[in-house]
Amino acid sequence: MRQAGRYMPEYRALRQRYSLLELCRAPELAVEVTLQPVRTLGVDAAILFSDLLLPLAPMGLTFEFLKGEGPSFHEPVRSAADVDRVRPIDPAHELAYVLDTIRMLKAQLDVPLIGFVGAPFTLASYAIEGGPSKDFARTKAMMYTEPQAWHALCGRLADMAGAYLRAQIAAGVDAVQIFDSWVGHLSATDYREFALPHSRRVFDAIADLGTPSIHFGVGTGMLLEDMATAGSSVVGADWRVPLDHAWQLIGDHGIQGNLDPTLLLGPWPRVRAAVEDIVQRVGGRPGHIFNLGHGVLPMTSPDVVQRVTRLVHSLTATRNT
Amino acid sequence: MRQAGRYMPEYRALRQRYSLLELCRAPELAVEVTLQPVRTLGVDAAILFSDLLLPLAPMGLTFEFLKGEGPSFHEPVRSAADVDRVRPIDPAHELAYVLDTIRMLKAQLDVPLIGFVGAPFTLASYAIEGGPSKDFARTKAMMYTEPQAWHALCGRLADMAGAYLRAQIAAGVDAVQIFDSWVGHLSATDYREFALPHSRRVFDAIADLGTPSIHFGVGTGMLLEDMATAGSSVVGADWRVPLDHAWQLIGDHGIQGNLDPTLLLGPWPRVRAAVEDIVQRVGGRPGHIFNLGHGVLPMTSPDVVQRVTRLVHSLTATRNT
Repeated sequence: MRQAGRYMPEYRALRQRYSLLELCRAPELAVEVTLQPVRTLGVDAAILFSDLLLPLAPMGLTFEFLKGEGPSFHEPVRSAADVDRVRPIDPAHELAYVLDTIRMLKAQLDVPLIGFVGAPFTLASYAIEGGPSKDFARTKAMMYTEPQAWHALCGRLADMAGAYLRAQIAAGVDAVQIFDSWVGHLSATDYREFALPHSRRVFDAIADLGTPSIHFGVGTGMLLEDMATAGSSVVGADWRVPLDHAWQLIGDHGIQGNLDPTLLLGPWPRVRAAVEDIVQRVGGRPGHIFNLGHGVLPMTSPDVVQRVTRLVHSLTATRNT
Repeated sequence: MRQAGRYMPEYRALRQRYSLLELCRAPELAVEVTLQPVRTLGVDAAILFSDLLLPLAPMGLTFEFLKGEGPSFHEPVRSAADVDRVRPIDPAHELAYVLDTIRMLKAQLDVPLIGFVGAPFTLASYAIEGGPSKDFARTKAMMYTEPQAWHALCGRLADMAGAYLRAQIAAGVDAVQIFDSWVGHLSATDYREFALPHSRRVFDAIADLGTPSIHFGVGTGMLLEDMATAGSSVVGADWRVPLDHAWQLIGDHGIQGNLDPTLLLGPWPRVRAAVEDIVQRVGGRPGHIFNLGHGVLPMTSPDVVQRVTRLVHSLTATRNT
């Protein structure tokens, strides 16, 4: 999950002077924000500070972030004609600032750097809904009523995502993550028809590079078996599915997760018990990336995040002896 | 799921003259809205037109509905002191208008009437968040940091829910449903500690009456086995979990569900295939209540809902011969 954010005072200080998009688009600032949690938390890898939606603007899907409401697209995709105006991009040109950020980070980091992209389903759902949604009704209505337009849109997004990840890897990231944040709203049947082929296309596009890849979603307990077939080396699981059960479902893959971020708002003995429970469910098996099941909540204390990092290190160090 | 709603022109006509709460609180109007879908859809049972939050206002948790934003509580519950001010109610007095609605409906209906109440977890989450939430962070923070206050709040809500359902049954409803709409945000561990005991208390409170009961939630694929132990005769499942798999998880209970309401926005062949798939997964076994996995979306055509009802009748009539 994104490591930096509003729970960190040093991030909030920057956000008083710059918008989210300004931070993402200025390499010096994005480098600083990426490094903040690495310095204070002691994590084993850095996650590129960026935003899932950045590639959409040069594709013709422009948006802004409304205060307290999240992204708002100027012209949401509602028809096949809207899909036709979605343009391919050259990441080396339109997303050069991200690649510059990666190169600058690689010159400074002692730990691996993880890049990322949004999965076609999740990016399409943002572009179609145009703003926040509880039920993804417009997204699903387009899937069902205009499947050709849907697949055309997701095809363009998959091509972008593949090219963008290749560019990130060429610029130096050591691993990549594909975020299919909202795919948990689909039934398994719909997932297989409307989302999985496009996610697979993204992983296929980078398969020859051999870069470790993580495939993440929220509320995906019923989709994990299918998600595991898309081509990633690691599958993420949120807190709704017990980690050992999730691992059974995904078979011979690494697993990432799965502490409920809300638990970090609780008293330390409860946090510790939950972390220990996850490590116990791993049972010493290699291939587990300890992480939250979703992003750190703004009201979280940085001290607790740091303490969890230390606890995971101490528990897994003991285990490895 | 609530059968009436903004997808029906006759409901929208009434909503132009009355607010949601005015419709709920005037028995003549609530009767009319309850009857609208029974007249036009040909469903096998009527669902009382009401709102989950109605009992909270007389308990001291007052709220209003803000246009386009949903409920907004005047003084959300944030502390043990706030819990102390939550009062018990006598449904025969404070919710007399609901019981009057039930009695009037029973005099007119040819099909069974289903009453309902919110589950303690879901009602508590509304009262604590005070408005819409994506992550239920305040709710979970209270669970973790003030478990005694949490359990006290849910205990009061469970007592209310038990008494309210008993009053609804005494007034004539033929079955009851307990809506734990947002419980799918919990891990199974947290569900067992913080939600299940209170839901069980509600079912225990009506167990001697022998009234059929339905236990519903959204995104509960990982909780169904535990939900089935709370004491209902039927467990609901949304579209994220294949119906036959859900039925395996809940064992010897009836099952309700599980068409994705968004599918009703699609072309008829797709709707028909999805309905047929559910009926096929039931495989003729008794104890299935065909329903949507969540409420009807406002943009749905009433014709499609009617057509689905007829299709289910024709498929299950064939099956029963």
